[in-house]
Amino acid sequence: MNELETFSLAPGFRAAAVAAGLKKDGALDMALVAADGPCNAAGVFTTNLVKAAPVVYDQQVLASNSASVRAVIANAGCANAVTGPQGMENARRMAELTAYALRCQPDEVLVLSTGVIGRQLPMEQVTQGIATLTSQIATKGASAAAQAIMTTDTRPKTASRTVNIGGKTITIAGFAKGAGMIHPNMATMLSVITTDASIPPNVLQTTLQNAVARSFNRISVDGDMSTNDTVLLLASNQVSVSEITAGLADNADMPVLGRPFAALALFSEALTEVCINLARQVASDGEGATKLIEINVSGAIDGAMAHLVANTIATSPLVKTAVHGGDPNWGRVLAAAGRSGAAIDPARITLRFGPAGSEITVLQHGLPAAYVESEAAALFRQNPVLIHIDLGLGEAATTVWTCDFSGEYVNINAHYTT
Amino acid sequence: MNELETFSLAPGFRAAAVAAGLKKDGALDMALVAADGPCNAAGVFTTNLVKAAPVVYDQQVLASNSASVRAVIANAGCANAVTGPQGMENARRMAELTAYALRCQPDEVLVLSTGVIGRQLPMEQVTQGIATLTSQIATKGASAAAQAIMTTDTRPKTASRTVNIGGKTITIAGFAKGAGMIHPNMATMLSVITTDASIPPNVLQTTLQNAVARSFNRISVDGDMSTNDTVLLLASNQVSVSEITAGLADNADMPVLGRPFAALALFSEALTEVCINLARQVASDGEGATKLIEINVSGAIDGAMAHLVANTIATSPLVKTAVHGGDPNWGRVLAAAGRSGAAIDPARITLRFGPAGSEITVLQHGLPAAYVESEAAALFRQNPVLIHIDLGLGEAATTVWTCDFSGEYVNINAHYTT
Repeated sequence: MNELETFSLAPGFRAAAVAAGLKKDGALDMALVAADGPCNAAGVFTTNLVKAAPVVYDQQVLASNSASVRAVIANAGCANAVTGPQGMENARRMAELTAYALRCQPDEVLVLSTGVIGRQLPMEQVTQGIATLTSQIATKGASAAAQAIMTTDTRPKTASRTVNIGGKTITIAGFAKGAGMIHPNMATMLSVITTDASIPPNVLQTTLQNAVARSFNRISVDGDMSTNDTVLLLASNQVSVSEITAGLADNADMPVLGRPFAALALFSEALTEVCINLARQVASDGEGATKLIEINVSGAIDGAMAHLVANTIATSPLVKTAVHGGDPNWGRVLAAAGRSGAAIDPARITLRFGPAGSEITVLQHGLPAAYVESEAAALFRQNPVLIHIDLGLGEAATTVWTCDFSGEYVNINAHYTT
Repeated sequence: MNELETFSLAPGFRAAAVAAGLKKDGALDMALVAADGPCNAAGVFTTNLVKAAPVVYDQQVLASNSASVRAVIANAGCANAVTGPQGMENARRMAELTAYALRCQPDEVLVLSTGVIGRQLPMEQVTQGIATLTSQIATKGASAAAQAIMTTDTRPKTASRTVNIGGKTITIAGFAKGAGMIHPNMATMLSVITTDASIPPNVLQTTLQNAVARSFNRISVDGDMSTNDTVLLLASNQVSVSEITAGLADNADMPVLGRPFAALALFSEALTEVCINLARQVASDGEGATKLIEINVSGAIDGAMAHLVANTIATSPLVKTAVHGGDPNWGRVLAAAGRSGAAIDPARITLRFGPAGSEITVLQHGLPAAYVESEAAALFRQNPVLIHIDLGLGEAATTVWTCDFSGEYVNINAHYTT
């Protein structure tokens, strides 16, 4: 997955990163992504009622100006959350300073912040940082930008993919950060995704929402997010693919999925793949994580039931510590399903561990199956660890990703602000 | 809180404990509580859809026979959960063997089990254990019984209280076990509480439910429990207090609280105090815990809102690790409130840390307050740590208890079954 060495954004975008002094250790802490011309843009934001200033600011920008976005300015080290009117003023100021240097309008710049809550941005360093970023911006800056938004991440997360639509090659490329994975949804997750395709803002928004629902929201419980979580998608309009928008003219607001627009479906699928790739990297790099855990729920009556069971298992500290210890303790998986609130029937549940082909059934129709304990333990020492739970009730299924849970998580989180 | 040295059950009860070989380390692992005569009994059980065999068995006993319970037989080391028909048979057999030795009926004996899920009870050891227990039972056995039901508990939990009603002294005395506190509700919690008062079973049941709602359910999210959680209350009928039941004859099914039965209110309050005492001990002794955390929510629109906010904060690993590290990171408390699902208004929230008298306000009406960081940090190094969040919306309030979250929790839980 590490494509960092060769990572570039989609054609039409440049990036830069700088160590502006917001991180104590002197690491890169500000990033800029800028487009050569006006972009269509879409965003998916935290549903936490406590929203950081840049989230409120970006929502205002996209509500009024989603067809003319030029840049994203980002910082780590300070979340600019719970900072009141001064925080809103600082978010706006970040956009203004960036816009001034890039010669565009403040409402053409989106803002991302991540880090400690309840502290004001050090605007002197931020101002100097923006000056440096706007003077250094280049096509080669994308890898550094991915590094600059990291907080407790141990590695940058990037993904890109090309897809051929109507004889033209479209690129989708993005980067993300996220950590704090014990409740995956407590991650302060940021992502910037770029594409060179020409897609109207409303279609872009629906497509992004669908992709996020199948990726970043599968590493988090719906509605259970941090103050800053944001996924932005910018489309630089460099490649016009008439197939994507053909037939949309009469009703461009219609839902993207479930309609037979083959070209748009190709784009949607590629975007979803990039998002899943980034989401899995976020889960793998959870604080203190040593393993990725993939939880597959099948046999649910509906998607809501599948999601409820999967998320309860994924957020169970007892399941996550068992995976950490290589202990195939299926009782904890079953107990999590039982307390999930979903109307399961314990007597219908079948539980399997391991990858397709070498799966071991540990519970069959509610009763312990015959298996070799050491073989099940071996599957729990692999990476990723795969857990399959068949509820035996219907046809709905889902997949979620999380990470194991180690003592290192506590070390990281016990002294974050001090 | 440690009354272990002098701990006795209520008059009319005897107890015993034995090391029957169910725990690997040879510690006490079976306990018996027996009454001198038939008791009225009540029980509150897990709402997990995956219920252990003894839970199903006890529910059957209390449904048919709550006015003639004679004993409680308990074991640690094996939960007898997800064990199918054989598990039900073994739970019944535990009751039968106990009843045979005590010369009562099998449906006059309640059963408790705690330990690993998905394994059958080693009935040879259990049978031998019951023989020893029934031959050794004595008034002095209560402290040992409290030790025998421990799993990852580091200390036994006992509490007792006397209350004078109508000139007569009533005793309420019980013990509990519980651990796995990161999601407090994942604790496999067991408790046996005894009293010498004469109270009809239906009144006993309502009173116990009220007490549990204000104690053990305040260290857990409603409906989010393990497969075995059980609280049993046995009344030995040794002290007849006519004041308690006076006026109940015409409608003994009426709800206990909210009605002006002063004598019954006294009993209910004393029982609640014993339950809160035990619940706080369970929270304090959470796996790897070094501190008790008390979370007070006030200013909620209703009790449900207060509970939702309090439980979300109490189960937040980020809050619990911050307390562990002595880091007064109020942003995490606020973010938990924001994602709780309650319709809070961030601008109305006031947040204080510390005990009454030396409280520090860290957030006032949604904005950071002026305070000395080192003083707030000192409050987070105390035990217990007190967190007060005033939502500023209404009059409802609640209190919940949890513990901090240390690396030791992971060590305990990574290798539980292996």
